[in-house]
Amino acid sequence: MIKRAGLILLSITVSIAFTSCSSTKRSANNGTLAIQEQGSFAAGGTVITAPGTFDPIKHGAFNPANQASEGQTLHGDHAYVFYQVPQNARKLPLVFWHGYGQSAKTWETTPDGREGFQNIFLRRRFPVYLVDQPRRGRAARGTKPVTIDAAPDEQLWFGIFRMGIGTEFYPGVQFSKDPEALNQFYRHMVPNTGPFDLAVSTNAVSALFDKTGPGILVTHSHSGGQGWVAAIKNRNIKAVVSYEPGSGFVFPKGEVPDSVPYVGGVLKATGIPLDEFSQLTKIPIIIYYGDYIPNQPAENPGQEQWRAAVAMAKRWRDIVNKHGGDVTLIRLPEVGLKGNTHFPMSDLNNVEVADLVSGWLKEKGLDK
Amino acid sequence: MIKRAGLILLSITVSIAFTSCSSTKRSANNGTLAIQEQGSFAAGGTVITAPGTFDPIKHGAFNPANQASEGQTLHGDHAYVFYQVPQNARKLPLVFWHGYGQSAKTWETTPDGREGFQNIFLRRRFPVYLVDQPRRGRAARGTKPVTIDAAPDEQLWFGIFRMGIGTEFYPGVQFSKDPEALNQFYRHMVPNTGPFDLAVSTNAVSALFDKTGPGILVTHSHSGGQGWVAAIKNRNIKAVVSYEPGSGFVFPKGEVPDSVPYVGGVLKATGIPLDEFSQLTKIPIIIYYGDYIPNQPAENPGQEQWRAAVAMAKRWRDIVNKHGGDVTLIRLPEVGLKGNTHFPMSDLNNVEVADLVSGWLKEKGLDK
Repeated sequence: MIKRAGLILLSITVSIAFTSCSSTKRSANNGTLAIQEQGSFAAGGTVITAPGTFDPIKHGAFNPANQASEGQTLHGDHAYVFYQVPQNARKLPLVFWHGYGQSAKTWETTPDGREGFQNIFLRRRFPVYLVDQPRRGRAARGTKPVTIDAAPDEQLWFGIFRMGIGTEFYPGVQFSKDPEALNQFYRHMVPNTGPFDLAVSTNAVSALFDKTGPGILVTHSHSGGQGWVAAIKNRNIKAVVSYEPGSGFVFPKGEVPDSVPYVGGVLKATGIPLDEFSQLTKIPIIIYYGDYIPNQPAENPGQEQWRAAVAMAKRWRDIVNKHGGDVTLIRLPEVGLKGNTHFPMSDLNNVEVADLVSGWLKEKGLDK
Repeated sequence: MIKRAGLILLSITVSIAFTSCSSTKRSANNGTLAIQEQGSFAAGGTVITAPGTFDPIKHGAFNPANQASEGQTLHGDHAYVFYQVPQNARKLPLVFWHGYGQSAKTWETTPDGREGFQNIFLRRRFPVYLVDQPRRGRAARGTKPVTIDAAPDEQLWFGIFRMGIGTEFYPGVQFSKDPEALNQFYRHMVPNTGPFDLAVSTNAVSALFDKTGPGILVTHSHSGGQGWVAAIKNRNIKAVVSYEPGSGFVFPKGEVPDSVPYVGGVLKATGIPLDEFSQLTKIPIIIYYGDYIPNQPAENPGQEQWRAAVAMAKRWRDIVNKHGGDVTLIRLPEVGLKGNTHFPMSDLNNVEVADLVSGWLKEKGLDK
């Protein structure tokens, strides 16, 4: 664990976060969105109750230093969902689930101020649901305590998110060099407000699909592995689009492949009962990976973990398909999209990235 | 401080959070929203940098147990903002700022599934900006560490939010008795993800108004007092609508009134230089309080702190107006709206509550 006492943190005020309106104004010329309905709600979750009896007269004043939980409840571990249904909507909604350290902001305005997948797919007439997973963002209220250390870590993520190495962008990367874009990008991050719990997350997303009815789950990174588990839990998940799943690949027990070692760690596969696994063979699934992922071991951990992920994803595709499934794995550079980071949905070429999904949804009859 | 080890927490799974779609479907028949532009961004914030040099090869792998912050940055303490501009928009946007323990969810779909102020005022052709203040919700990334204790506290808030006492609703309260409404209401809450800091909050909101240009600030509860400070900082705040400000009333030095004691605490006024205070005399301000606030001392702390707030707010109104200001204070029951909780913007009569604001904005020429 990092020792905070040993750090001298330099505080620098960013005097003008938005030096002009240009970055958001760019998104203004895409025409009016006709929204039939929009709103937000909590999905799933649990309730904990402290034993005893609450006395509203004795303990009804707010006093953080002397609080009495006796007899009180806490509702937590739900997902927060904001949804919009466009006019003349297609039948199946797209349910977008963010990755590690992120919220639904991932799918909104891009760091350089263009439209994200939220608007792009509303314009393509899909109902759009944006999820903050339990213990994150507007679903921050969890049932377990946590300490947030606020330790500087952004150059680590710059590498893992494959923007570049250290502070240097990769040549040809699909990310704006306007410093305000990187400022906005870093401010997309949000801490965990409780311990990560696979069951908590997937229960909440399953509860969401109980509400939406049949729909298409779109995952990113850490939600990739969670997405397989959610799709096993809820038959309303009729397809999965997975951007850069990093871990959590589930295989039938007895067919679990070897782990994949990489610089900085080991990627392990998980075994689950065949009857659970079989659900994943019944829905179309597509997986996308961006650029800068080597095929051979390299020295940079920020690339290495994705080399391992692609290797494991290929094995996963093959075994799901061997059992009768329909998994496609696309590496964007191999279909002509170069320079993509770990966030293809907000990269400079995100319209082309969206076009690929639209084509696949049409091919699978999921865009009626 | 509560000792968690002494608590036996009972975990109850909420198996079906939404038993039917009826609660959100109710909001579907209000007609299509024509949205000219929508998006989200971070406003303001700071950057901290840990001393040293980051080595992307040596420290570029994700390892929470052995992280090295050396040479890395953290962007935090910004606000998160989601905005929508309707077709044929009025000139001045409404910027909505939530209260304690809440996020911008406050202004979205109500706990019982009706449209909140977000949609209501979009339909009335105002550009709508919804803020998550720094260290809250999707702006959770702060520059200071914090521990979240996840202690059950909802019956406390049931009282302070003037829903009722303990678990009993007040007679005639403008809140749905559908248990799902209370479930959703509690799930609006989000913890602080950093220590509260008035300067951090008001700097971020001021940075937002640098971006929006002239606009109207709408505050609730804890953001009430912060809102006065923000309005002093930024001349783009052309008016303030304040729902149930609870504390943080600022007076000219030398004219600070006595504190107001109440069951459970003491409400103190703050002195600031007259030239700062004077800014508050230059913009129209309206304050609203709901029902169940006694005029005389009572035994219930959940009501008592609002008795003190109203008493202090009246003094504040009088002194701002004495200095040439334009402050109106409305107690909703006195103008015919009965049964309002601490959340008039989402109570069952929230359309009537919105009508009052619309009338005031028209009267002040703020709805051109």
